[in-house]
Amino acid sequence: MKLTAAQLDQFHDDGYLFLPDWFDADEVRLMKAEVPGIFAQRRPENVRERTGDVVRTAFAVHTYNPVFGRLVRHPKFLEPAEQLLGGTVYIHQFKINGKAAFDGDVWQWHQDYGTWAADDDMPEPRAMNLAVFLDEVTEFNGPLFFIPRSHRRGKLAAGHDVTTTSYPLWTIDHDTIARLANEGGMVAPKGRPGSALFFHCNLVHGSAPNMSPWGREIVYVSLNRVDNAIRRFKRPEWIAHRDFTPLQAMGADCLRELAREPAALR
Amino acid sequence: MKLTAAQLDQFHDDGYLFLPDWFDADEVRLMKAEVPGIFAQRRPENVRERTGDVVRTAFAVHTYNPVFGRLVRHPKFLEPAEQLLGGTVYIHQFKINGKAAFDGDVWQWHQDYGTWAADDDMPEPRAMNLAVFLDEVTEFNGPLFFIPRSHRRGKLAAGHDVTTTSYPLWTIDHDTIARLANEGGMVAPKGRPGSALFFHCNLVHGSAPNMSPWGREIVYVSLNRVDNAIRRFKRPEWIAHRDFTPLQAMGADCLRELAREPAALR
Repeated sequence: MKLTAAQLDQFHDDGYLFLPDWFDADEVRLMKAEVPGIFAQRRPENVRERTGDVVRTAFAVHTYNPVFGRLVRHPKFLEPAEQLLGGTVYIHQFKINGKAAFDGDVWQWHQDYGTWAADDDMPEPRAMNLAVFLDEVTEFNGPLFFIPRSHRRGKLAAGHDVTTTSYPLWTIDHDTIARLANEGGMVAPKGRPGSALFFHCNLVHGSAPNMSPWGREIVYVSLNRVDNAIRRFKRPEWIAHRDFTPLQAMGADCLRELAREPAALR
Repeated sequence: MKLTAAQLDQFHDDGYLFLPDWFDADEVRLMKAEVPGIFAQRRPENVRERTGDVVRTAFAVHTYNPVFGRLVRHPKFLEPAEQLLGGTVYIHQFKINGKAAFDGDVWQWHQDYGTWAADDDMPEPRAMNLAVFLDEVTEFNGPLFFIPRSHRRGKLAAGHDVTTTSYPLWTIDHDTIARLANEGGMVAPKGRPGSALFFHCNLVHGSAPNMSPWGREIVYVSLNRVDNAIRRFKRPEWIAHRDFTPLQAMGADCLRELAREPAALR
């Protein structure tokens, strides 16, 4: 499950790595089938859109759902993360972002580390996101927009946006975005369900609203190096976790074996 | 300047025709240079975004600006329009849509004929739009989304949306959009400045907000067959014109000769 030297170089150069079909169809089907039951729950971890009664983000699903409890320990995520971050890691944040058909709203331009530093006092940008598409991501359903190489600028000045969406975020001003995008360009990785996106916690990204009739669910696992644990606990535990125990990888079949033995799920 | 039989068939089948580089670089440069002066004007024809003090739509520019006064009579627009609509035509509406960097807002799913029938009492869908890109249109700056073949469904039921944007529009419900898009798919024509898009007045379309740092100006000329003139005049004349005189084409060089002799402009 390890990344090649060329892949590691690409991540460090561009700030991200796109891996089409990283998870197989059985693994995706297993995960996808869990989502309606998760989104139907009325719980604080499920943040809804301002524009409609649909889930924008379901946090901390790995703490109560056995399928996603295995995904976070899957060697396809964990081995690359340890390579890229250079040490053992723990789960800082877990979310499923819904980006629902018609209602999925904008994510303004931001760096994740901006929020993790400002709100959680994470010492250094030694963290990253590992994402897997549960739906096909197209140009129509609000793909992520990345500004390649923007992670090399370190943490950028940001303002706390508590008005434009239903979830507070430290966002970056327009002049900075224009300068970075005119230098680095912009990319929008698209692909089939099961494709994975790994990206640096300082990579500047955002996504437009989804005005298409096709939903676009993406799972994000944010891993942080164990020796870089957060030092402020003002946000709920389900947004910024406080269990700094190093994650242990499961077997490569950890999801597929659940698909074969669904009874073990319940 | 005439379209081929294959192009006519494609328009009638799909509801649109995309013509890369239909206008040349000199013509685009001439038009593009006019826009800042037009957008800077405080006049009722310039509708601003709800999200910022930037122009969403500049109506009726052809009535006071000599460059766009020539564009509407350019044979590259007028000859195809007469072929496609099967008769002489007049200008029903003219607009430059700004879709400004960062602030350019959504256009919800709609048919133009829905508004022209409901508000202006246009008898039949014998009208069309001819658009030219003044900027490069990419996946990042809010391209038009078309649902191919949706024009064959005739006028669809619509509701009057006076809240989600700064400009009132008759928009189509989500269930209908989902059904049409699952049948016909979705396309987003993209290309260099000077590229043209011709589309039927019943083709369902919309566009997402522009969260990129790159503006996206498109000129839209809406032509209607002279024998299909509107019968209700409740909207301002600069939104729904009342001069039903058949347009006469100018020469193929009508824009380029202004580029060569800018003094003639003033």
